[in-house]
Amino acid sequence: MRDVRICYVGDSFVNGTGDPIKLGWAGRLSASPQNNNLDITHYNLGIRRETSEDILKRWEAECNSRLTQVSENKVVFSFGVNDTVIENGQRRVSLESSIENAKTILLNASKKYDVIMIGMPPINDDEQNERIKELDHKYQALCNELNIPYLSIFNRLVHEQIWRDEVALNDGAHPRDKGYDILANFIKNWSGWVL
Amino acid sequence: MRDVRICYVGDSFVNGTGDPIKLGWAGRLSASPQNNNLDITHYNLGIRRETSEDILKRWEAECNSRLTQVSENKVVFSFGVNDTVIENGQRRVSLESSIENAKTILLNASKKYDVIMIGMPPINDDEQNERIKELDHKYQALCNELNIPYLSIFNRLVHEQIWRDEVALNDGAHPRDKGYDILANFIKNWSGWVL
Repeated sequence: MRDVRICYVGDSFVNGTGDPIKLGWAGRLSASPQNNNLDITHYNLGIRRETSEDILKRWEAECNSRLTQVSENKVVFSFGVNDTVIENGQRRVSLESSIENAKTILLNASKKYDVIMIGMPPINDDEQNERIKELDHKYQALCNELNIPYLSIFNRLVHEQIWRDEVALNDGAHPRDKGYDILANFIKNWSGWVL
Repeated sequence: MRDVRICYVGDSFVNGTGDPIKLGWAGRLSASPQNNNLDITHYNLGIRRETSEDILKRWEAECNSRLTQVSENKVVFSFGVNDTVIENGQRRVSLESSIENAKTILLNASKKYDVIMIGMPPINDDEQNERIKELDHKYQALCNELNIPYLSIFNRLVHEQIWRDEVALNDGAHPRDKGYDILANFIKNWSGWVL
């Protein structure tokens, strides 16, 4: 059986915050029955509140400890929503820095690992969603330039009533189990999701 | 709702290696319905092949990134089996160093966080099990000395036929879903497991 080790690196959406079964979309992907012929080691490295700047500082040490020379290794990144939060009158991370941080992360990671990126979901705040949507376009363009598979999920989730309802009834940002089911299914059925 | 964030730090048994549903005992504990009145953030920091020496190097940076000043924080350690592996004619980590490493980790962690420790399971190798059993006694004594709750699981799992069968049919070390169910239930029903 192929020994496949996956690090999912990102923020609270990667962590699966809000999911009562504590898998999130990342856990659902790793545990999917479509992987029954693979030996998958699952490493969830999503941290609540983290921006692209925080992830830039830690992704490499954390992935290097987990990915080995004897396994097939994959790194799945997803971050950016926290960059677009306004704190004390300004974005936590400027648009330019969000792009620069992602570029540095993706360039370095793709030298050593098989890398893909998942976009950002909408939250329950129209103004912030505009900023998320803008960053999503920038990240899509960056990944095209770097030849890294990128799945934009923003538009699809905006139209998912279950996602929107769960987010609104939960904390305004994170869904619960059905929302994570939906997102995991998007990714599973995407041509860029290859194990 | 209380904001409780838990880091589970250790080796492949913490990671949940072998578990098809990718929760391991740690995920089962966090997702337990007994926590329905808590807002639990789950961070699984188990890494395959890691010894007490490896964990000494990384536990603090990884926990500090995840645990905040505004949450109730808990760190659950479990490691030691890999220390007892013989490689090139000697233990990967000497008994003395295994104890010293654990002491340093536990002393420092308990200064900042609510800390508990879970012991090591038996594997499918009688000689190594003798060494695991010896280290389990040492870790129990160390935790008594440091006043840190320690749950020894070795003797109970030796007598669990389901655990033994899953380990033997899997890779000789890790169980599958039923084994992790059993271990999670031991911990859930232990007086030291308090959230």
